[in-house]
Amino acid sequence: MSDTATASDSAVEQTLPYYEPVGSECALFEQAYQQRLPLLLKGPTGCGKTRFVSHMAAKLGRPLFTVSCHDDLTAADLTGRYLLQGGETRWVDGPLTRAVREGGICYLDEVVEARKDVTVVLHPLTDDRRLLPLERTGELLEAPDDFMLVVSYNPGYQHILKSLKPSTRQRFVAMSFDFPPPKAECEIVARESGLAYDRCAALVNLASRLRAMKGQDLEEGVSTRLLVYCATLIAAGMPILEATQATLVEPLSDDQDVQEGLLESIKATFG
Amino acid sequence: MSDTATASDSAVEQTLPYYEPVGSECALFEQAYQQRLPLLLKGPTGCGKTRFVSHMAAKLGRPLFTVSCHDDLTAADLTGRYLLQGGETRWVDGPLTRAVREGGICYLDEVVEARKDVTVVLHPLTDDRRLLPLERTGELLEAPDDFMLVVSYNPGYQHILKSLKPSTRQRFVAMSFDFPPPKAECEIVARESGLAYDRCAALVNLASRLRAMKGQDLEEGVSTRLLVYCATLIAAGMPILEATQATLVEPLSDDQDVQEGLLESIKATFG
Amino acid sequence: MSDTATASDSAVEQTLPYYEPVGSECALFEQAYQQRLPLLLKGPTGCGKTRFVSHMAAKLGRPLFTVSCHDDLTAADLTGRYLLQGGETRWVDGPLTRAVREGGICYLDEVVEARKDVTVVLHPLTDDRRLLPLERTGELLEAPDDFMLVVSYNPGYQHILKSLKPSTRQRFVAMSFDFPPPKAECEIVARESGLAYDRCAALVNLASRLRAMKGQDLEEGVSTRLLVYCATLIAAGMPILEATQATLVEPLSDDQDVQEGLLESIKATFG
Amino acid sequence: MSDTATASDSAVEQTLPYYEPVGSECALFEQAYQQRLPLLLKGPTGCGKTRFVSHMAAKLGRPLFTVSCHDDLTAADLTGRYLLQGGETRWVDGPLTRAVREGGICYLDEVVEARKDVTVVLHPLTDDRRLLPLERTGELLEAPDDFMLVVSYNPGYQHILKSLKPSTRQRFVAMSFDFPPPKAECEIVARESGLAYDRCAALVNLASRLRAMKGQDLEEGVSTRLLVYCATLIAAGMPILEATQATLVEPLSDDQDVQEGLLESIKATFG
Amino acid sequence: MSDTATASDSAVEQTLPYYEPVGSECALFEQAYQQRLPLLLKGPTGCGKTRFVSHMAAKLGRPLFTVSCHDDLTAADLTGRYLLQGGETRWVDGPLTRAVREGGICYLDEVVEARKDVTVVLHPLTDDRRLLPLERTGELLEAPDDFMLVVSYNPGYQHILKSLKPSTRQRFVAMSFDFPPPKAECEIVARESGLAYDRCAALVNLASRLRAMKGQDLEEGVSTRLLVYCATLIAAGMPILEATQATLVEPLSDDQDVQEGLLESIKATFG
Amino acid sequence: MSDTATASDSAVEQTLPYYEPVGSECALFEQAYQQRLPLLLKGPTGCGKTRFVSHMAAKLGRPLFTVSCHDDLTAADLTGRYLLQGGETRWVDGPLTRAVREGGICYLDEVVEARKDVTVVLHPLTDDRRLLPLERTGELLEAPDDFMLVVSYNPGYQHILKSLKPSTRQRFVAMSFDFPPPKAECEIVARESGLAYDRCAALVNLASRLRAMKGQDLEEGVSTRLLVYCATLIAAGMPILEATQATLVEPLSDDQDVQEGLLESIKATFG
Repeated sequence: MSDTATASDSAVEQTLPYYEPVGSECALFEQAYQQRLPLLLKGPTGCGKTRFVSHMAAKLGRPLFTVSCHDDLTAADLTGRYLLQGGETRWVDGPLTRAVREGGICYLDEVVEARKDVTVVLHPLTDDRRLLPLERTGELLEAPDDFMLVVSYNPGYQHILKSLKPSTRQRFVAMSFDFPPPKAECEIVARESGLAYDRCAALVNLASRLRAMKGQDLEEGVSTRLLVYCATLIAAGMPILEATQATLVEPLSDDQDVQEGLLESIKATFG
Repeated sequence: MSDTATASDSAVEQTLPYYEPVGSECALFEQAYQQRLPLLLKGPTGCGKTRFVSHMAAKLGRPLFTVSCHDDLTAADLTGRYLLQGGETRWVDGPLTRAVREGGICYLDEVVEARKDVTVVLHPLTDDRRLLPLERTGELLEAPDDFMLVVSYNPGYQHILKSLKPSTRQRFVAMSFDFPPPKAECEIVARESGLAYDRCAALVNLASRLRAMKGQDLEEGVSTRLLVYCATLIAAGMPILEATQATLVEPLSDDQDVQEGLLESIKATFG
Repeated sequence: MSDTATASDSAVEQTLPYYEPVGSECALFEQAYQQRLPLLLKGPTGCGKTRFVSHMAAKLGRPLFTVSCHDDLTAADLTGRYLLQGGETRWVDGPLTRAVREGGICYLDEVVEARKDVTVVLHPLTDDRRLLPLERTGELLEAPDDFMLVVSYNPGYQHILKSLKPSTRQRFVAMSFDFPPPKAECEIVARESGLAYDRCAALVNLASRLRAMKGQDLEEGVSTRLLVYCATLIAAGMPILEATQATLVEPLSDDQDVQEGLLESIKATFG
Repeated sequence: MSDTATASDSAVEQTLPYYEPVGSECALFEQAYQQRLPLLLKGPTGCGKTRFVSHMAAKLGRPLFTVSCHDDLTAADLTGRYLLQGGETRWVDGPLTRAVREGGICYLDEVVEARKDVTVVLHPLTDDRRLLPLERTGELLEAPDDFMLVVSYNPGYQHILKSLKPSTRQRFVAMSFDFPPPKAECEIVARESGLAYDRCAALVNLASRLRAMKGQDLEEGVSTRLLVYCATLIAAGMPILEATQATLVEPLSDDQDVQEGLLESIKATFG
Repeated sequence: MSDTATASDSAVEQTLPYYEPVGSECALFEQAYQQRLPLLLKGPTGCGKTRFVSHMAAKLGRPLFTVSCHDDLTAADLTGRYLLQGGETRWVDGPLTRAVREGGICYLDEVVEARKDVTVVLHPLTDDRRLLPLERTGELLEAPDDFMLVVSYNPGYQHILKSLKPSTRQRFVAMSFDFPPPKAECEIVARESGLAYDRCAALVNLASRLRAMKGQDLEEGVSTRLLVYCATLIAAGMPILEATQATLVEPLSDDQDVQEGLLESIKATFG
Repeated sequence: MSDTATASDSAVEQTLPYYEPVGSECALFEQAYQQRLPLLLKGPTGCGKTRFVSHMAAKLGRPLFTVSCHDDLTAADLTGRYLLQGGETRWVDGPLTRAVREGGICYLDEVVEARKDVTVVLHPLTDDRRLLPLERTGELLEAPDDFMLVVSYNPGYQHILKSLKPSTRQRFVAMSFDFPPPKAECEIVARESGLAYDRCAALVNLASRLRAMKGQDLEEGVSTRLLVYCATLIAAGMPILEATQATLVEPLSDDQDVQEGLLESIKATFG
C-alpha cells in the first residue's frame, strides 16, 4: 500500500465494523470476491449498505475506497489527474485507480447519480478483461485478484433520466437490501445508541408503522439511521415526543398533513 | 485555530449575539452538538435562523463558518482548492474543511440552492464515520467531537427540481422555525431598532395581519427583519406611512393590487 | 481611496449631477444611508434611477461604483479575482469589494439579470452583520458606516425565471420610481436638450399619450431619455416628424401597426 | 491612431465606399454623430446596412470597427482581454475599446445574436455618461466626441428569446432600412456587376416579384447582394437561366415547390 | 505555400481526382472562383460533393483545406489559436486562415452542424470586402483573388434548430447535387471497385429501386459510396447476397421490416 | 510499434482469445480488412461483440485499441492532446491516432454515445481518402493498409437524440450480431465457467425463455455474460436458486412483478 494510504484504510484493517447479517448477503459478497465478479447493491436510504461494505472489506482484509457519486463527478475524479505541484505536473491516482493498483475494494455509492463517462470507465473493469485503461498516462492496468468493484443505488427514486443502462447493469452480480427484520434492527439500534433493548423495540415497532405510509405520503420510509438518532437523543435524556419529532417527523416531510399523520402514529405508540 | 481565522470568528468568541428563544430549540441544538449529530433548520425568510446559529456558536464557544449556498457553489468552494501563489500551487482550505480541522460549526444557509456535488460531499460527514475525504490532497479528515454541521432551507419556496433528496435529509436531526410569538418579536424589534416597546407592538400586530395574506397574494410573509427596518426608520423620525410603505409594502410585492391590500391593512392599524 | 480610483469617482466628488426630485425619494435615500440599510429601486426603463443614484452619491460625498448586471455576471466580477501579472498572481478587488473597503455606494443596476451566486453574495452584506466574506483571499470585510448597497430592477418585464427571491427582497428598504410628473419632466428635457421649455412641453404631452399605449401594444412606455434625444435632434434643426420617427417610434417597436398607432398620436400633436 | 490600426481603417480614410442614398438616412446618421447619440439600424438581409455604415465612416473621416455578433461573442471579445505573450500577460484592447480610445465608429452587426453581457456592456456607453468601464484593467474610459456606436439587426427573423430588451433599445436613435427603390437598386447592381443598366433593370423587376413571395413561402426576400451576384455571372457570360438558378433560386430555399414558384417568375420575366 | 503544407495539398497538385461531371457544375464552380464568389453545395449523403470539390481544387491548381463541421467546432478551430510551445505562446493558423493567407480553397463540409460563431466568422469573407479579421492577433487579412470558400450541407435532414440563417445563405452562389444519373453512376462504381461494368449496372439498377423507398421507410437513400463498397466486396469474391446485406441493407436501417423490404428488392434483382 | 504500446497489445499478439463463430462474421471482417473498409457491428448487450473484435485482431495479428464511448468523450480523447510535462508541452497521441500511425484496429464501442465531434472526426478516415487530420499538430496522417476502424452500437436502446446520422452510417460495411445459437452458447458458458456442459444447457434453455420476455417487461434480454456469471457461481458451490437470483433476476429489473415473472420461469426450469 502506498504511503498516502488514508486513515480509513488502516482503520479498516484493525477493527471489524459491526454488521448484523440478515440473510446470505455475506456469502454472496465473498463468492463474488472469490470469482472476481463485480457486485451491485440495491436498497433504500440508510438501510446499511455502506456499513455492510465496510464490514466485508474488513472481513476480507482489503482496503476500502468509497466514492459518493454525484452529477458533477467525472471519470477523472475516479481515475486520477495531473496536478501542478512545485512547477512539475505530477499524476495523482484517483480512488478507483488506487484500488486497482493496491488490490482493494472500490465502492461507488449511488452510482446512478454519476455522469455517463463514469459508468463507461467501469466497463473494461467489469468484463473478463478486468482492465483499467488510463488514457492520460498511457497505462493499461490489469486488476489483481484481490480487486473488487461494488456499486449501489436506491431503486426507490431513480429518475427516468438517471438509471443504469442494461449494458452496465448486466455486468454485475446483484442483490437487494431492505431494512433489517425487527429483531436485527432492535439489536442494531440498541448497540449504536446505548438505549435499552426494549425501548428500542418500541421504536422499531413504530418504524414499521411509519414505513407503511411510504408511497402514499412519504417519498422514503424512515431509515435505521434515524432510529439510531432518535434512540441516541432519548438515551441522552430528551423527552420521547421531542426526540421523535426531531428525528422521525421533521426529517421525513415538510408537509403539515403528513407531519400530523406521523405524529398520530407516534402518539398511538408512546402516548 | 489557524492564523488566518477571520474577524468574525474572534467576534463570535467575545460577545454573545442577542437571541430570544421561543421553545426548546437551544436544548435541541446543544443535544445534537453533544451527540455529534448534524442539524437541519427549516423556516421562512428572515425569521432568525442565522441569528440563532450565531448565538449557539457563541454559547458553545466554537468558531462559526457560514456559507450562503447558491446555484454555482461547488464542492471545491466548501472543501478548498489549489491556488497559484508566487509560482507555487498552494492548497487553501474551504470553510467546511476549516471547520473540520479546527473543530467549529459549519452553517450552510439555503442548502437546497447548492449543486448536487455539494450535498454529496456532506454524506460521509453525516453518517457515523464523520469523515471528510479531500481527494485532491489525498487526505481523509476525521471530524473532531467539537465539529458540527448545520444546514437550513426555506420549505416555503422549494422548487420540484430543488429539494433535498431523502438520502440527504435522513442524515439530519431537524427542527422547524417560524416567526417568533408576538411578545418575543416585540422585544426583538424594540431592542434592535431602539423604538419604544408599545410602538413596536403595533408593528408586530400589523405584521400578523399581513402574514395572514401569505399564500393568497404574497409569496412570503413579512419578516422580523423588515419589522426592524420599519421601526428603525420610524425611530429616526420618518413618518409611519412612509416607513411602512418602504419596508412592509414595496419589498413584499410589485403587484399594484397586492400593494393596495397591504396599504389598507396599514391604514386600518395606523390611520 | 486607492490610487486606482476611477475618473468617475473623482468627477462625482466635484459636480453634483442634475436631478429633479419628484417626492420624498431623497429623504428616504438619506435615511437608509444613515441607518445603514440597503436600498432597492424599482421602476421603468430610462426614468432616471441611475441619475438619481449618481445625484445622491455626489450629495453624500461618497464614491459610486455602478455595475450593470447581466446573465453572465459572476460573484467574482463583483468581489474580485486573482490575475496573473508579471509572473505573479495578484488579487484585484471587484467594484463591490472596493466600495466596502473604501466606504462608497455600490449600485447594481438591473439586479434580477444577475446569476444566483451574485444575489447570494449580497446576503451577509444586507443583514445586521454587514460582512463581505472573500473566500479566495480568506478575508472577512466588515462594511464601514459610509458603505451603502443600492440595487434596482424594472418590475415591468421580469420573467418568471428571473425575479428576486423573497429571501433577497426582504433584505432591502424599497421604493418605486416612475416617469417624472409633466412639469418636472419638461424641466429635465429642456435642461438636457437645450430646446425651449414650451416646445419640450409639447413633447412631454405627447409622451403621456404614447405611454398610455403600454401593455396593449408596447412592452414599455417611451422613456424620458428618448424625449431628451428627440428634443436634442429638434434643437439641432431636424424636422419634428423626422426626429420623433427616429426617437419615439423606431426605438419602441418593430411592428408596423404599432408604429402607425404611434405616428397617428404624433401627427395629432404636431400635425 | 495606434500602430496596430488595421488595413481596413486606412482604406476607409482614403476612398469613399460607394453608397446610393435613398432618403434622409445620411443626415440622420450625421446628426446622431454630432449630438453623440448611439444609432440603431433595422432592416432585412443584404439591403446595404453594412455598406451604409462604411460609407458614413469614410465621409466623417473616422476609423470603423465592425463586429459580427453571434451566440458565443462575449463582452471580453468587445472590450479586450489579457493574453500571455513571451511570458508576460499583456492587455489587448478589443474593437469597442479601440473605437473608444481612438475616437472611431464601432458597428455591431446583428446585435440581437450577441449574449446578454454584450448588450449590457453597452449601457454606460449609451447614456449621457458615455463611459466604458474596463473592470479587468481598472480603467474607466470616457468616450471622446468623435466616438459613435452603431448597432443593427434584422427585425424579420428575431426569435422570442433573441430580441433587444426595451432597456437597451430605448438607448438608441433608430431608423429602418429596406431594399433600395428600383431606380437606385438598378444603379447599384449595374455599378457593382458591370452589367448593362437595362439588363439590371430586368433583374430588379424580377426581384420585386420574388420579394412579394416573402412571408408565404420565403423566410426572407432576395437581397440586393444576390442581384449583384446574378448580374456578375451574367456579365461573365453565364446563361441567364443558369445564373438566376444559382443566385436567385438555390440560395433562397431548399423546398422543391418554392423553387418551382421562383422559377416560374423567372421564366415569366426572361422566358 | 508555407512549409507546414500538408501531404494532401501536395497530392492535390499532382493527380486530378477522378470525377464524372453530371451537368454544368464544373462551369459554375469555375465562374464562382473567377468572380470571387463563395459557393454553397446542397445534396444527399455520399453523392460525391467532397470528391467534386477535390476535383475542382486540383483542376484549378489550388490547395484544398477541408473541414468537417460539427457541434463543437469553434471559430478558433477555423481561424487559429495561440498554443504554448517551449515556454512560448505561438499563434497557429487554422485551416480557414491558411487558405486565406496562401490563396486556396477552404471547404466546410456539413456547415449547418457548426456553431453559430463559425458561420458569423464567414460573413466578412463573403461580402465584397473579402476580409478575415483575426481579433486575437490584431490582423485583418484581405483574401487574395485565388481564395475561394465552399460550404455544403444536406437539405434532407436539417433540424429546425440547425439551418443556415438567410443572412448567411444569401451570401453564397448555390447549387444542388443529387446522385449521378445511372450511366455515370455505373462508370463511377466500375472504376472505383474494379467490378465489370454490366455487373455494376445491375447494382445501380437496384439502387434506384431502393432509393424510391426513401421518405417512407428510409431516412436517406443508398449512397454511391455504398454501391462502391458492395461492388468491391463482390469483386473480391463475396457472394452477392452477403455483400448486399452488409452494404445495402445493414447500413441503411435497424428496423426488421425495413430490412426485409430492402431484401425483397435485392432478391427480385439477383434472385 | 512505439515503446508505449500497452500490455493489452502484446497480449493480443500472443494468444488468440476464444471465440465461437456463429455464421460468416469472420469472413466478412477479414474481407472488410483486406478491402480497407470500415466495419459497423450492431447487437444487444453482452452478446460477444467485444470478444469477437479481440479475436479477429489477434487472428489478423494487429494491435487492438478499444475505446468505450460516452457522453463526454471528445475528439481530442481519440486523436490526442498537448500535455504539460516537465515545463514542456508535449503532444500525446490518442488511441485512434496510435492505431493509424502503427497500423492497428481501432474499436469504438457504443459509438452512438459519443459526442458529434467524435463521429465527424471519423469521416475523412472512412471515405476513400483514409486520412486523419490532426489540426493541433498540423499533421495529415494517411492510414496504412493494415489500419481498420470498427464501431459498434446496440440498436435496441438508441434514443431519438442518439443515433448515427445517415452520413456517418453509410460510411460503414455493417453486420448484425445476436446471442449465439443454443449449442454455441452452451459451449461458451461451459468453457468460461468450468460448469459441466449439460448443466450449462439447462441455463441456456432458461435464457431463451427469459429472452422471450424482452420488450414486454424487460428492456434487454439476459446476456451470455450473465449466464457465465451464473454458471461460475454454481460451479463454485452456490445453490442454483441463489445464483440465478443474483445473476438472472436482480441485474435485469428492479420491478417486483417482473422479478416474480423471472423467478417463475426459473422455478419451472429447476424447481
